[in-house]
This record gives sequence, C-alpha cells and structure tokens, in this order.
Amino acid sequence: MKLLEERIKQDGQVLSDHVLKVDSFLNHQIDPGLMQEIGREFAQRFAADGITKIVTIESSGIAPAIMAGLYLHVPVVFARKRKSLTLSEDLLTASVYSFTKKETNEISISKKYVNEHDRVLIIDDFLANGEAALGLLHIVQQSGAEVAGIGIVIEKSFQDGAAKLKQLGIRVESLAQIAALANGEVTFLNQETEELVK
Amino acid sequence: MKLLEERIKQDGQVLSDHVLKVDSFLNHQIDPGLMQEIGREFAQRFAADGITKIVTIESSGIAPAIMAGLYLHVPVVFARKRKSLTLSEDLLTASVYSFTKKETNEISISKKYVNEHDRVLIIDDFLANGEAALGLLHIVQQSGAEVAGIGIVIEKSFQDGAAKLKQLGIRVESLAQIAALANGEVTFLNQETEELVK
Repeated sequence: MKLLEERIKQDGQVLSDHVLKVDSFLNHQIDPGLMQEIGREFAQRFAADGITKIVTIESSGIAPAIMAGLYLHVPVVFARKRKSLTLSEDLLTASVYSFTKKETNEISISKKYVNEHDRVLIIDDFLANGEAALGLLHIVQQSGAEVAGIGIVIEKSFQDGAAKLKQLGIRVESLAQIAALANGEVTFLNQETEELVK
Repeated sequence: MKLLEERIKQDGQVLSDHVLKVDSFLNHQIDPGLMQEIGREFAQRFAADGITKIVTIESSGIAPAIMAGLYLHVPVVFARKRKSLTLSEDLLTASVYSFTKKETNEISISKKYVNEHDRVLIIDDFLANGEAALGLLHIVQQSGAEVAGIGIVIEKSFQDGAAKLKQLGIRVESLAQIAALANGEVTFLNQETEELVK
C-alpha cells in the first residue's frame, strides 16, 4: 500500500536494525485519515471472504480494525491483555510473550462474541515474530470459528512471524512489508515500490 | 443522541444500581457503524471550536475518538495506562484511581504530540466519578494546550464526574446521560427521549 509506505518513509523512526517507531501516526498518535484508507484496503482484500467478525488486540490494533469493520460492515472484538488472568469459563485465552517488553501477557476475549458460525479476520498493527498473531489465532480457533486470514498494517518481513503463520496455512495480508532496517533506512520488500517512493 | 440511547436500552446490561455493561457494542465488542455516528455527533458539537487534536485513553476511548478525529480532520493521541511508570522527561503523566478495579494507574502521553499551540477535545467512553477525565485534563493542561471540552459517550449522571468537571469550567458534551439504573432499567436524564424510545 503505497500511501502507507510513503508515510513510514516520512515519519517512521528507525531506532535500530530491528526497531521501527511509528508512534506519530499508528501507535500513540493516530492519523484517522490514514486509518480509514488502511481499513478500506483490508476490506477490499477480504471483500469476497464472507467475513462476519474482526478480532484484534488492544490497543494499537483497534483503530485499523474499527475502520476495516466499518467497510466490511461487521463488528470488531478486541482481546484484552493482562499480566495474569483469573481463569473464567466465559473467556477464551492465550499466552503471548512480548520480546519487546520481555514479559508474558494473558490475552482474552469473551466466548459470547466469537463462535463457530463466524468467519474471522484477525487484524493487528505489527507482525514481527508472530507471538500476538499466534495468540489471537489460538483464541479464535478455540471458539470454533473459521479464520479467513490475518491483516497486518506493518510486517517486519526479516523476522519469522509471517513465515510461521503461512506454514500453518493461514493467509496473511500485510499492507507494508519491511525487508530491512539497516543504517537508519527502511527498505520495503517490494523494491520497485520503494524506488517510486524515493 | 437517540441512536445511542436506543442501543443502550436494547443491548446494555444493568448489573447493579451502579453498573451498566455495554461490552456488546462499546467496551469489548465494538459496533463500527455506531462509532461512526458517535464520531460524527462529537464533530458536529465541536465543529466551531477550532479543535487541533483529540486526546483519549486506551482502550475503549480509541474507537469513538478515532471516528471524531476522522470528521474533525485532526490526529488522535491516546494515553497509555500503566500500574507504575518510570518517570521520563518526555512524558506528561497523571495518576488515575479506578473505583471499578480498585487500583491506581499512571496514565501518560508523549510531550511530542500535545503542546501549547493545540486546542484539545478530550474523549472517553464513560464518565462516572470523573477520575479518568480529570487525569486526562491534568495531562493536557500540563502541556500548555487549551482544553476546548470533553466529549463522553455515556455519562452516569447520578455520579459526580460531570459536576466536578463543570465546576472547573470545563464544557462536557455527553451523548447519553443516565439518570438512574434502578430495578434493572436504564433511565435517561432526558425523560422525553426515553418515552419516545419505549
């Protein structure tokens, strides 16, 4: 998605070979117009897939998910993160390890809102090692719902999350795919697009 | 806002005289179409106020805030909640006590994203005792920005949050105002509207 790649080039901060900070338009300050275009793009890519529900995770997944839900005309359910969780029969849960924060969170959604009649689109802001996406996948699969695919705003393609998901037969649609973050520069997987952007 | 009051009547669960659960369309599962109308309504009410930025708090404030930001054409900044916070010169912070969860959280936003040139609209999903709204107000005032007002999706008017804010001279625009939650029934402040809904 060219608009998103341009924005990453313009406003993303490369903090190291592994860390891209995009808190000026996605993770802390959010650009609603960009989110609208991102939502529209996800909706187009999954328009033919009979999606009945979107599942995401707090907090940065909510904005892109809500815009995708608007265009697909389906509700959005966001998983909550907790350091520890009192087990409840009403919750579907999974453990998610964060390499960035070096901590494990329990994530959960209520059984009330996803069930075996749903076809679910999972949306998240970032895909790196795939921990959060695998957690969401695990939760949705526990509900008996079918996973139609995973929509990612920014994929760090040099980490193995996307490969892990594809090995499980899951369709992954990433709107920006980052091949490398070297020398303070963002290189996208699609070099052709990158040349146009420059 | 009639559409919202109708939805609360239809899908809200009155759990006690003080607790209204709306996790089927606002707090856990979110209805994007309803959020769009809520955003449009906030934008109309603050259309003439020269808003340059919206500030909200994770997680349930994000969806209504992002839709308001879309219609007002301004960025949204969401405050993060942490049990404790390493103090940093780059952060504006406040302590917020949650009566529901019986815990104090530090909330914070980056100084980079709100400053003395901004006119800020604060948005949150619920207003009860006003703790979260006062915390957000405190943060925005520290930045030197002007607070144009506070937009609330659901105000529990039988608690004192709205009164506290108005005493401080803050404009509060609440889209639904709940007068009472007695006998499992929601009564709105505007009884006339309630009669139409019944």
